[in-house]
Formats: sequence, C-alpha cells, structure tokens
Amino acid sequence: MISIPDTLSWEDETLVILDQRKLPGTVEFLKLHTLEDAWHAINTLAVRGAPAIGIAAAYALAQSMRHVETDRFRETIAQNAGYLKTARPTAVNLFWAIDRLVTRAGTYEALVEEARAIHKEDEAICLAIGKHGAPLVTPGSNILTHCNAGSLAVSRVGTATAPLYHQHARDVGFHVYVDETRPLMQGARLTAWELDRAGIDVTLICDNMAASLMDQGKVDLVIVGTDRVTANGDVVNKIGTLNLAVLCHHFEIPFYVACPSSTFDPLTASGSDVDIESRNPDEVLAGHAADVRAHNPAFDVTPHNLVTGFIAEFGLAHDSSELSELMSNRR
Amino acid sequence: MISIPDTLSWEDETLVILDQRKLPGTVEFLKLHTLEDAWHAINTLAVRGAPAIGIAAAYALAQSMRHVETDRFRETIAQNAGYLKTARPTAVNLFWAIDRLVTRAGTYEALVEEARAIHKEDEAICLAIGKHGAPLVTPGSNILTHCNAGSLAVSRVGTATAPLYHQHARDVGFHVYVDETRPLMQGARLTAWELDRAGIDVTLICDNMAASLMDQGKVDLVIVGTDRVTANGDVVNKIGTLNLAVLCHHFEIPFYVACPSSTFDPLTASGSDVDIESRNPDEVLAGHAADVRAHNPAFDVTPHNLVTGFIAEFGLAHDSSELSELMSNRR
Repeated sequence: MISIPDTLSWEDETLVILDQRKLPGTVEFLKLHTLEDAWHAINTLAVRGAPAIGIAAAYALAQSMRHVETDRFRETIAQNAGYLKTARPTAVNLFWAIDRLVTRAGTYEALVEEARAIHKEDEAICLAIGKHGAPLVTPGSNILTHCNAGSLAVSRVGTATAPLYHQHARDVGFHVYVDETRPLMQGARLTAWELDRAGIDVTLICDNMAASLMDQGKVDLVIVGTDRVTANGDVVNKIGTLNLAVLCHHFEIPFYVACPSSTFDPLTASGSDVDIESRNPDEVLAGHAADVRAHNPAFDVTPHNLVTGFIAEFGLAHDSSELSELMSNRR
Repeated sequence: MISIPDTLSWEDETLVILDQRKLPGTVEFLKLHTLEDAWHAINTLAVRGAPAIGIAAAYALAQSMRHVETDRFRETIAQNAGYLKTARPTAVNLFWAIDRLVTRAGTYEALVEEARAIHKEDEAICLAIGKHGAPLVTPGSNILTHCNAGSLAVSRVGTATAPLYHQHARDVGFHVYVDETRPLMQGARLTAWELDRAGIDVTLICDNMAASLMDQGKVDLVIVGTDRVTANGDVVNKIGTLNLAVLCHHFEIPFYVACPSSTFDPLTASGSDVDIESRNPDEVLAGHAADVRAHNPAFDVTPHNLVTGFIAEFGLAHDSSELSELMSNRR
C-alpha cells in the first residue's frame, strides 16, 4: 500500500539506513559498519526523526559489541553508549533506546534481540497512534503538518502521519498542507515526497504561509511529531512548531502532538530544562544569503497550554496528567 | 554613510535599475529601454518594493511617451498606463504613481518632471519615517523585520529600515533579526545585505524561528513595510507578515508598520478587497522539494487590530482613523 522504502533495516549483522540527506532526488542506502559511521549518520541527519534515531542507535550499539569479549563487555558498552549519546542532544529517544539496551542486555545476541524488539514495538506503536488519531482526520478536512514525523522518521506509518495513512487506507478523502520546514527542508524533501508517493493529496507551503491559510479557514487541524515531551507536557519539536501552536491558539484550530511512549520524558520537568541543539549557521546561509551571522536552533519548545492533545499509542490525552497516566499505566 | 547603490535612477532619458534578482552575489544595473522592459522588470522582481515599483513605473511611463505626438498623447498614455498596471496586482504604489502621472502631466517633459518629483518626495518621506520611528528603536533593543522594506525597496533609507538607519547614524546601538522571507529570500538576500553593509548588527533567521526568539524575550519590536494599507487599517504585505503580527499579539511585542502616504489606499475598504498576487509555484519548489503541488501567495493580510501602530511621514498613528487623519490633513 505505502511505497516508501524502509528507513532502516538490520541485514547480515549490519545496520542499513536510507540516506535521507539525498531525498527526494536519490534513493540510496548506506551500510553503517562502525559506531563512528552511526554517530556520523545521526549527527548529519542521514538518519533522522526521533524514533528512527532511537532504533538506529540501538542497532548500532548492538553491532559495536559484536566482537567484544565478556570480561570487557560492561566497560565497553558503557563507553560506546556514552559516545553514541553525543550524536545529537535533543531527541530523548536516542538516550532512551541506548539506556534500554545497556540495562537489559548482557550479550551481543541479546543486544540485537533488544534492538529488534524496539524496532518491532515501534511499528505497533505507530499503527496504534494511527488508530487513535484517525477520528481527528475527518472526510474533506485539511490537515497541516510540519517537518517529517512520517514513515521516514520511524517505522512504516510514522507518528504524526499515522492517522493520515490510517484514514487514507480506508478511502477517507482529505488534504494535507506540508510546511517546507526551513532550513533543512524535511517537509519539502521528505514529508511531501512520502505522502505523495502514498497517493495522499498534498500541497507544499513555505513556513510563513500557514497564518494566511488559517485566517482563510483552510486549515482544520495541525498534527506534528515531537522529539521530547517533558513531564509537564511541554513539547520539544522541530523549529517552527511553537509558531504553529501560537497560530492555532489564535485561530482556534486544534493542535495535536503524536507522542509514542519512547518520546515521553517524565524525568525532565519542563521544556526549559531540555538542551536545544544549535546547528551550523551555514544551513541557514546556504544558497543566496548575504554573508552575515545566522541563528540556527534545530528545535523550539511549545508550552503545554498550547497543546490541544497528545496522540499516544494508548489513546488520546488532553493534558500532561492524562498523558502521564496513560504512559505509566501501560509501561 | 550608507554604501548601498541607488536602487533606481534616471540617466540620459532612460530608467536604470539595480537588478535585485542577482543580489547579493552580483551588483548589476539594467537599462530599461522599453515599456515592456519595465513591465518585465517589475513582474520578475528585478525592481521590487512598493515605493520603488511606483517610482520605476512613473519613470517608465514617462519614458514610453517620449516620441508620442500630441494628438495621440491621451490615448497612448491611457494604453501604456493600463498595460503597466498589469505588471503586479497588489502594491497600490504602482497604480498611485501611474494615475498621478496620467492625471497631472500632459507632455513628455512634464511626465519626467512628475516622476522626478515622486522620486524626490519619496526620499524626504523615508527620512521623515525614520525620524518619527526613531524613538521606537531604543539603545540595546532587538528589532525584527521581514522581507525588504529597505534602501533597495525605495529611496535611500527605506521605510521599515528608516528608523534603523536614523538611529544607527546617531550611534544608537541595537541589533536586528532579519527573517529570510521564503520563497524569494528578500530578507536573506537584500535586507541582511544592505543592513550589514551599513554597519548595522544583523542576524539572519529562518521565518519559522521568530516564535522561539520572542518566547525567549529576544525580540523587543517588529517593524515591517507594506504594499497597501486599506481604509480600515488592514495591512497587505509580504507573505509571513500576518504570522509575525499574530506572534507579536501573543507575546505582547509591539508590531509597527512603516507606511508612506503613497501606500495608503483610502478607496479600498479592507484587506479582503485586495487582489493578492499568486506567484509561480516553482518559486516554492525550486531546490530540493519533492515534485508536488505548491501554494505561493506573495502577500497576506494583517487585520488592523493586530497592528500596534503605523509610522507615516507625518508621524505615528495608532489606528486607521488616526492614520486617515494624518494622511488627509497633509495631502
């Protein structure tokens, strides 16, 4: 049904990723042979999207332990885990997946098994998010999404896109506006590409056009993914998310966040406690800009009071306490 | 003091423009020999910015009448004016300048004189806007601007940038965030370039980063230009302006619009009556986007209730009735 290649896979004891830096022009797969390869792939966004980063890190950590002898196992995995965690600072899935492997698995085989389990669970989680979010995507509605929390960010149906794929498979007709998502264009390059390939009706817009569409009544719902939801319900996500949340508040449009449990971080109190990755200014300046200083935060923090609801694998939650309850009941 | 080349000039009976499509990489001047040249230059944004469009149209219309005989003068100027007005639909200055020439001048020499008068008045208007807006630009403040309502859009000091140039010339220290302004990057290419050349402290941001900066208290004031202010005070300006106005409202940041009288349109009731130019979707898709449909409105409408004030050449106005009064008293 969905003709998007797998964003990552485990083949012959090796992690293989779809190189997302080259999409949509080139569909090319990368074999990551070493832990350094994986670190670089995550750091440069060859593999990206909070859940996909977690899964990739799990496989990469397992792979790095293949030939390590038993008496050096604990020491080496701690070292490798520490190194891999420095690839990117913001998405909690990276830390969550690595910690899960370190604490649960004591042999190479068990690590691979645990990474596979995370990968497999992720597919089920996305499908469940699709089911719970589906009623929001009504016939004839216009949905706006930002960045890529789609199939490419995660297994199969994505998170923010899961309700879309769910409804599309059931022949519900709707239309999606995709924010291009400057500076790295994940919306233009990835989300527009994957939704279009799946046969969903898509229109690409620049990030600064959403207000005008909303003012004209052309947006019924916004769904975004997230890199981390803190204990109080603050949402850390791709730069530009806060912008949309404020607009939704102003124009009285529902603003939903797709949040798999791996992305919920009950140990961090609020968004202001999260390390926001600052990327190379050249990403902003690339192209035709004047030779000046540029600012390039990769994420922003949307305060919980601007979030209409969270779409989790366990159901819909409308505030942080409902979300905490959902998450803690099922863990 | 300001090392920006003149955006347009009248030399040897010919209109010469700085080709803004090639900035900041190349500083190249274009001689516009025919009315078709001028139409094309305006349509493709070689010359752009509401006041500059008006001045260019005035010179171009005059130039087109150079060898027209007296008995065909009225008929030809009506024809040429009608044609030139189709170059772009939204900025009222185009229509205002053309109509002013048609109604006031009956010979080629008188037309050139009138065009020169518009050009000269524009310089004085911008300086006056700078003086009236200057108190808003306080020492140490952070000002955000969108698109280019600068020197390149108009004579010398620009409109939205006039208070900045005014204060910079008086050694007031402040910092400017420039929205890159997708899809055509007028902020990144033009505003950042001209402010930086003038020695003003500039940081370029993507359009989707403003919310995050505002949330962190890093923006004290937004000043934008406009292509048309309607009778009720609605502001038609570059796509993304409404976005900023909503954000300013939410974060309680003053939102000012620099509005020379040539941009005020008392004959149009509200923003919803203005024809919003829809440009080629390829401008959005250019680069690495997937091959999908794109939406490309060049402007949006900011309702008057989101505007803190207007900076006109006659002073500051805080609503449409104050603005109307200023404009009508001085015309």
